Amino acid sequence: MEHLTEIKIRGYHADFYGHVNNARYLEFFEEDRWAQFESKIDLRKWAEKGLIFLVVNINVNYRRAVPVGETVLVTTKLEKIGNRSVVLKQEILLKESREVAADALITFVISDRSGKAVSMDGEIRTEVEKLQ
Amino acid sequence: MEHLTEIKIRGYHADFYGHVNNARYLEFFEEDRWAQFESKIDLRKWAEKGLIFLVVNINVNYRRAVPVGETVLVTTKLEKIGNRSVVLKQEILLKESREVAADALITFVISDRSGKAVSMDGEIRTEVEKLQ
Amino acid sequence: MEHLTEIKIRGYHADFYGHVNNARYLEFFEEDRWAQFESKIDLRKWAEKGLIFLVVNINVNYRRAVPVGETVLVTTKLEKIGNRSVVLKQEILLKESREVAADALITFVISDRSGKAVSMDGEIRTEVEKLQ
Amino acid sequence: MEHLTEIKIRGYHADFYGHVNNARYLEFFEEDRWAQFESKIDLRKWAEKGLIFLVVNINVNYRRAVPVGETVLVTTKLEKIGNRSVVLKQEILLKESREVAADALITFVISDRSGKAVSMDGEIRTEVEKLQ
Repeated sequence: MEHLTEIKIRGYHADFYGHVNNARYLEFFEEDRWAQFESKIDLRKWAEKGLIFLVVNINVNYRRAVPVGETVLVTTKLEKIGNRSVVLKQEILLKESREVAADALITFVISDRSGKAVSMDGEIRTEVEKLQ
Repeated sequence: MEHLTEIKIRGYHADFYGHVNNARYLEFFEEDRWAQFESKIDLRKWAEKGLIFLVVNINVNYRRAVPVGETVLVTTKLEKIGNRSVVLKQEILLKESREVAADALITFVISDRSGKAVSMDGEIRTEVEKLQ
Repeated sequence: MEHLTEIKIRGYHADFYGHVNNARYLEFFEEDRWAQFESKIDLRKWAEKGLIFLVVNINVNYRRAVPVGETVLVTTKLEKIGNRSVVLKQEILLKESREVAADALITFVISDRSGKAVSMDGEIRTEVEKLQ
Repeated sequence: MEHLTEIKIRGYHADFYGHVNNARYLEFFEEDRWAQFESKIDLRKWAEKGLIFLVVNINVNYRRAVPVGETVLVTTKLEKIGNRSVVLKQEILLKESREVAADALITFVISDRSGKAVSMDGEIRTEVEKLQ
């Protein structure tokens, strides 16, 4: 399967206006982030070291309403590795037409047990690069 | 205020069919359970003893669709104290007409650190009776 | 695929107590109801006739907490056809052990344009029996 | 009341990591947008003219985790009126310390029956300015 996350839009995903609600889109993005992370990096090892992912910014464009009954695909790509943060680019695509329904830049840091954002160096950088 | 929980129904509470979604009603019930518990019993003391509430059954009747823009009230009453379980009766009322939009029986147990449901005796029973 | 609905439990499905929240379970059940309906009956034809499904009662047992990382399957079976209502039996199973995490009886009516529950006769009964 | 939206954080608002989930924050922001709109402009008149609000971008900073039990306030201010779009600035504040837990810029357009974003002129601009 080319895409890890494929979701058929149901009535309970949409709000009163017949659109998939803004908040629900964030769940779709989160679903694919976890699916990608699980498939590419060893989350158990990270948890043992007390490292957790903390989203610090989400910048999302809602480009096209998704009707109930449509199927969407979610994609996640590594956009940029900063000194202490990582940016992912995510898209929600209509499966048939491949039109973009929404896209987002998601910035996260990796926090250690002291609550500090760690540097994107050495082993951590190598792991994060696997998200490519 | 007579009711602890008063919620104005917004477009994001309703699904595509213009009804407040089944799952959302459970959040409204949960909101009032916490509000009632907080106002009547010392949850901090319970947590220190390692006691937690575990819902084991919800039996909910959806009686009337709630339109967007309507305001609802949530009520919670102690229905029955069993040997190792407690039943609450909850209702969601249309604020103006006081018609019942949904009602539910919620059965919960109080679980200790070993994961066992404790008996509704002594101090625990006294505390639970405060939910009246 | 034996089951239409298979869900990997993520951190965002669980609440503060590490359990999949009560309300979220109802979404899992709803997801499989739609998947089953779509695979067995012609929902478009129903919509054209102005017929909609209205859930009137949910009676759900929460039997076992589902940890994050576990995968669950959802099942839906026709339990009973009444005069003007239908009861489905649904289960959420841990994929590996096949233990039941939750089960529910879902009672729905089929409402026509006038808002009345239709009789389970003739063509409608034949359609509903396909849910077997 | 100085703030229209005040929310006590419950266990069901938080995810497995003990943080209020990203998607839930968007619901808090949406709640206050509706509360502000209702208190300041005549939404019924807008609906009669076939005008609806469509969020096209959300840029949200998650600045501080909100623990269960804490109470938050939500604020909404008019940031900028563009040619065919409006930007609101929203904040989620810890009630006691007034620290910012999250802030967001929300860009929306007003769409007419043809699906086009209308110009921020005349009566529409006057109405939008009431959001100040």
